[in-house]
Amino acid sequence: MITSPANPRIKMLRKLQNRKYRDETGWYYLEGPRHILEAVSQKAAIEYVVVCPELIGDAKDFLTRLSADLRPDQLLEVSPETFRGFSTKDGPKGLAAVLHQEWASLSEMKPEGLSWVALSSVANPGNLGTILRTCDAVGVHWLILLDRSTDPYDPTALRAGMGTHFSVKIVKAGFGDLVDWKRAHKIKMIGTSDRAEQDYHQVHYPSNCILLMGSEREGLTSEQVEQCDQLVGIPMAGRADSLNLAVATSVLLYEMYNQKRDKK
Amino acid sequence: MITSPANPRIKMLRKLQNRKYRDETGWYYLEGPRHILEAVSQKAAIEYVVVCPELIGDAKDFLTRLSADLRPDQLLEVSPETFRGFSTKDGPKGLAAVLHQEWASLSEMKPEGLSWVALSSVANPGNLGTILRTCDAVGVHWLILLDRSTDPYDPTALRAGMGTHFSVKIVKAGFGDLVDWKRAHKIKMIGTSDRAEQDYHQVHYPSNCILLMGSEREGLTSEQVEQCDQLVGIPMAGRADSLNLAVATSVLLYEMYNQKRDKK
Repeated sequence: MITSPANPRIKMLRKLQNRKYRDETGWYYLEGPRHILEAVSQKAAIEYVVVCPELIGDAKDFLTRLSADLRPDQLLEVSPETFRGFSTKDGPKGLAAVLHQEWASLSEMKPEGLSWVALSSVANPGNLGTILRTCDAVGVHWLILLDRSTDPYDPTALRAGMGTHFSVKIVKAGFGDLVDWKRAHKIKMIGTSDRAEQDYHQVHYPSNCILLMGSEREGLTSEQVEQCDQLVGIPMAGRADSLNLAVATSVLLYEMYNQKRDKK
Repeated sequence: MITSPANPRIKMLRKLQNRKYRDETGWYYLEGPRHILEAVSQKAAIEYVVVCPELIGDAKDFLTRLSADLRPDQLLEVSPETFRGFSTKDGPKGLAAVLHQEWASLSEMKPEGLSWVALSSVANPGNLGTILRTCDAVGVHWLILLDRSTDPYDPTALRAGMGTHFSVKIVKAGFGDLVDWKRAHKIKMIGTSDRAEQDYHQVHYPSNCILLMGSEREGLTSEQVEQCDQLVGIPMAGRADSLNLAVATSVLLYEMYNQKRDKK
């Protein structure tokens, strides 16, 4: 049992709250039984798991499940005091882990399946995690982050993602490369804009297409608008001129998902 | 010009970051030119506005607009240092205000229009603000907060609401009173549940109904489920068992809004 907060593997847990450190190491910090068990069952790349049996309700059951999938040296037992020292939760549940960030590339994407979501310079980690959660729900298996994006491994993004980081693959790419990819595979890219004349609900979506969403503040750039095969807008009856980014993405994804379901 | 942070009207700005203080006074703190101008143009109940001309880009234009709608004693000029002392933003834009919270009651709700949204024990202020923003977009004019709800005048809720606090009326009510109201006016209440057999996309929604959403953690209580005239669920293809609350509410509201638009 580790009781010293100066232990390097314990110190690492705190350091990974910081994006700079996550970028340097390629690791991230995950906390909570639900998330950790999802990581294990989805065979995520776990570096090590930190356990505090006193804080886990069903400790024996958890430890049995974890030790079936992890090597003994990947399981660190700590005291409640040590756990509380790095925990980011009000009522810590005694389970945390360090994992390797998993990034996919455009070349791995097969041009099949429902569709892809590409986010341009998404700034809010809560929005990013929420979008991952909706992607999982509608069967989108790839999320493409373009340009300067917030970190999907930010604690807020992980919390909002509710474990869907392990079922949706995350790709980092430049916009030009995405355009090349979609041309090579003859795949349509549909952009959303508040200036689009086409109502999103009046459009028939191809069974595989890229949904391109602009950033929270700026929307799509004029270059991005130019490269879209179609532009759609979500009608709004009120005073506000836009929806929350995660809401807009989800409303569009459910329209696409419903059309696919209606066909069956 | 006020330069002392000890001035009671300046001290108030900081205190209102705290829910306890907001509850006691019935006031709240709002910051940013966009929000303040929306408050003025929507005739919100403004107590006073704090202006720092040096921090406002188009100061003269703003001041002209504000002084047309406010009494001189409602406009306080402060130094940049004083403004930065209470501002909650990284790059403060020199405009903040104290406003009166506005609460409506069930008895004011006329049983007409598109529909109402009722949230049971919503916990996350970001979700609450985002839901207000979607309500505004689809023409829902009343949002009913049931039981223990987070504060719609929390800074995070205000930020997420993007000024729609002034176009959607907020009602605080007990669940029993809402049930009485819907019975008296013969209005249907539609609840959402992940255990509902009915697909939300296969249902025809009445032109006026109450959409009842459960809390982030618990969903609807069994008493609430019992009082619903219909239960609908949003199908999900992935591993996660629920959507973000603001996303689920918005997906449902856009289905209702689209059905209404399709009829025309």
